[in-house]
Amino acid sequence: MAKLEKITPRDQDFGKWYTDVVKQAELMIYGPAKGTMIIEPNGFAIWENIQNYLDKEFKKLQVKNVSLPSFFPKSFLEKEKEHIDGFAPEVLQITIAGNETLAEPFVVRPTSEVIFAHYFSHKINSYNDLPMKLNQWCSVVRWEKRTNPFLRSTEFLWQEGHTCHDNGEEADEMSKTIINLYAKFAREILAIPVIVGEKTEKERFAGALKTYTIEAIMHNGYALQSGTSHYLGQGFAKASDIKFQSKDNKMEYVSQSSWGVSTRLIGAIIMTHGDDRGLVLPPAVAPVQVAILELFGNKDERVGQVANQIATDLKDFRVEIDNSSKGPGYKAAQQEIKGTPVRIEVGPRDLEEGLVTIVRRDTLEKQQVKIEMAALTAKKIIEQMPADMIKAVEEKNKERIVEVTSYDELKKQIEETKFVLAPFDGSAEDEQKIKDETTASTRCIPFGGKQDKAKCIITGKDTTRWVYFSKAY
Amino acid sequence: MAKLEKITPRDQDFGKWYTDVVKQAELMIYGPAKGTMIIEPNGFAIWENIQNYLDKEFKKLQVKNVSLPSFFPKSFLEKEKEHIDGFAPEVLQITIAGNETLAEPFVVRPTSEVIFAHYFSHKINSYNDLPMKLNQWCSVVRWEKRTNPFLRSTEFLWQEGHTCHDNGEEADEMSKTIINLYAKFAREILAIPVIVGEKTEKERFAGALKTYTIEAIMHNGYALQSGTSHYLGQGFAKASDIKFQSKDNKMEYVSQSSWGVSTRLIGAIIMTHGDDRGLVLPPAVAPVQVAILELFGNKDERVGQVANQIATDLKDFRVEIDNSSKGPGYKAAQQEIKGTPVRIEVGPRDLEEGLVTIVRRDTLEKQQVKIEMAALTAKKIIEQMPADMIKAVEEKNKERIVEVTSYDELKKQIEETKFVLAPFDGSAEDEQKIKDETTASTRCIPFGGKQDKAKCIITGKDTTRWVYFSKAY
Repeated sequence: MAKLEKITPRDQDFGKWYTDVVKQAELMIYGPAKGTMIIEPNGFAIWENIQNYLDKEFKKLQVKNVSLPSFFPKSFLEKEKEHIDGFAPEVLQITIAGNETLAEPFVVRPTSEVIFAHYFSHKINSYNDLPMKLNQWCSVVRWEKRTNPFLRSTEFLWQEGHTCHDNGEEADEMSKTIINLYAKFAREILAIPVIVGEKTEKERFAGALKTYTIEAIMHNGYALQSGTSHYLGQGFAKASDIKFQSKDNKMEYVSQSSWGVSTRLIGAIIMTHGDDRGLVLPPAVAPVQVAILELFGNKDERVGQVANQIATDLKDFRVEIDNSSKGPGYKAAQQEIKGTPVRIEVGPRDLEEGLVTIVRRDTLEKQQVKIEMAALTAKKIIEQMPADMIKAVEEKNKERIVEVTSYDELKKQIEETKFVLAPFDGSAEDEQKIKDETTASTRCIPFGGKQDKAKCIITGKDTTRWVYFSKAY
Repeated sequence: MAKLEKITPRDQDFGKWYTDVVKQAELMIYGPAKGTMIIEPNGFAIWENIQNYLDKEFKKLQVKNVSLPSFFPKSFLEKEKEHIDGFAPEVLQITIAGNETLAEPFVVRPTSEVIFAHYFSHKINSYNDLPMKLNQWCSVVRWEKRTNPFLRSTEFLWQEGHTCHDNGEEADEMSKTIINLYAKFAREILAIPVIVGEKTEKERFAGALKTYTIEAIMHNGYALQSGTSHYLGQGFAKASDIKFQSKDNKMEYVSQSSWGVSTRLIGAIIMTHGDDRGLVLPPAVAPVQVAILELFGNKDERVGQVANQIATDLKDFRVEIDNSSKGPGYKAAQQEIKGTPVRIEVGPRDLEEGLVTIVRRDTLEKQQVKIEMAALTAKKIIEQMPADMIKAVEEKNKERIVEVTSYDELKKQIEETKFVLAPFDGSAEDEQKIKDETTASTRCIPFGGKQDKAKCIITGKDTTRWVYFSKAY
């Protein structure tokens, strides 16, 4: 049982606040191998709710789930040149198996493009087999120098979709469909107003022709890349010989997409909605949506009866009754730390007037309602909460997102941790220079964004490409 | 797209039949690292259905899901002596991470007792924290000399439950509750009449005080251990210092259970129910429960209309319509190979008489019914099928299970691949001798089994312990 310790105020030390919340809400603790996570029941239940929603959406798109090995011979990773260059510094190698030293080490998957390619090359023969759309829910491993709970860990959970198509347009379209699905999910389910767009060449996935992204702005102004979808073209197909016989009897390479979201989303939820009292969870992913607290239940048996009655009325929701002997203040604080969307306090004094007290977590608004209205009130709050939560964040984002037309302005705004839109048509080297000088990276070229002609802040040349820059996790 | 090849007859070469079915039904192919599995959509959907059922049952027992790292420092495995002795020959070691050679290798988890112990030791303080009941769905890795799809693979999927209790009786009770849940699941959902019992000391899990098991008898007479549940006592608690403050203020060690079922269950389903035409799936875990085949749909538009209507009527089931241009024979054979419980053939000739043809997979019974009765007939077959399937297996088991009272008889029956109950009170060495001489191992001491006094077949001493022996996977 966690003791309730003080949470560092959010605006005093955001990093400390974050780790305090993760700890106090019992979301995860570190495992013994550096940077690995033990995701606790409270944290994993959020992930399960994310899985349930997305898995249904993937299946509507005819995506089927599979399970691929978590390790494979090192030579497989080396098939696609850019891919190995991108991942080599991060992979873990298995060199001993039982009592044998392996002739060729295995690498633990940092991502599964090459092993999916192996499967596709065995299963795809003709255009009749296409499109082939697969996904897996699994963990991947990347050796990280600095780790941060959920945001950057040596091992993390994710889903990775991998699809093959008989033409590039369809593969690209698939990757766009998915990034738009991720955006809808972030907005409607997580109440996070993400910005959707394309990565610059420098920030692309190793081996992709295009990378699409959803970017969220955290409370401290930092960007968090929250999901990506890649149009891979034929690179992996050529490296692994994934060919199909086309309608006019030619052997052609497939075109591919791959895409994923990870337990990073839990970090996004914490840093978007959390406050000084702890976690604030969107109802759709909250492990418990309504907590019913029995206050002084030992003194008045009606307390337990009313709590049970309300729980029965809320049977379609995830409800938990706290009938422990802990004090009212402790019980309330515990639910606030865990971010439970609605808590209903049932105590003898209220009951004498036929009332219970309902508190919603996001606004901390408190109201007394008649016992008979408790369930209905809770339902209404749960319905209303996502829209209110996203509105509150959008309100803050109005001040966080700015536009500039010069490098000096950019530097100034980045210093103030803004999310900055600027005309930029420079090279990967120019991007690196900006990063070195400001710590900001390009986040994306937003879909449907500004297209006005302006001078690039670095090259001074005319451009219509406006790019978001920001400090980022 | 798989071509339909001939399946080796089951009684001609059972091993070949098995791998033919796995391949033709597109359940899995091997990955590039020795003995690893790529579980294909048809195979993984069976596992998802298993997960859905069991996960709900675990949650009813207040078990919560978590996610633990897939690797940990080697020294952790060495904390519990018997445990490391049992698993050392099978573990994979990670020795290189990024560009570093690790000072201490990581081991890839072969099972997670020691890492759960690490978590428990951090989270458990007092009796108020107990019982703590956790589970994870994940993969584990064991280096196997000989591999066989789903039955024995280097990496496989499973769930592993781990619980802590404030006394040994409760921990033992928990492990029994779970083995009985597994047995109920095997019987009611998988239609497999398992035998439930306790393992002898020799066959116990490394580190356990008791191991309970469900044993199934395959078509060829071999036993398949299909799920185990262990009462661990305080061994891991002492090795990892998992203590709690008791009600009378003493520091005590927790008592533990751990339990799991794996993708091995898919092998059990194949080898229990499959026939010469391919897989036969119990409806509850079948990826597709009803396949509606449009025959000559291009020649008669009513074919598609009727197929869609029947699919609508079956909306609570997993239904797939095959409206491809493949021939009727091919379509039917494909569903038979995949083991789809019910197929409904909709063709122009039948339609003229207002009929469709319905075939149930287990018995291959074929009937023509009125279009309006198609959905109802399919539903009735699906309801009836599990009871009929288990009855068919129980019928066969009557001949497979025999009783003996001497070692000579045992040898003879084992030669005929029977599942043999014998009075046996010998040592681990005696068991090893029997195994060396007959290839049979002890399967279990069945719950509620025979207790008659008899002479042990090896020692000749009086005993009331009757033990099952069998050849086994």
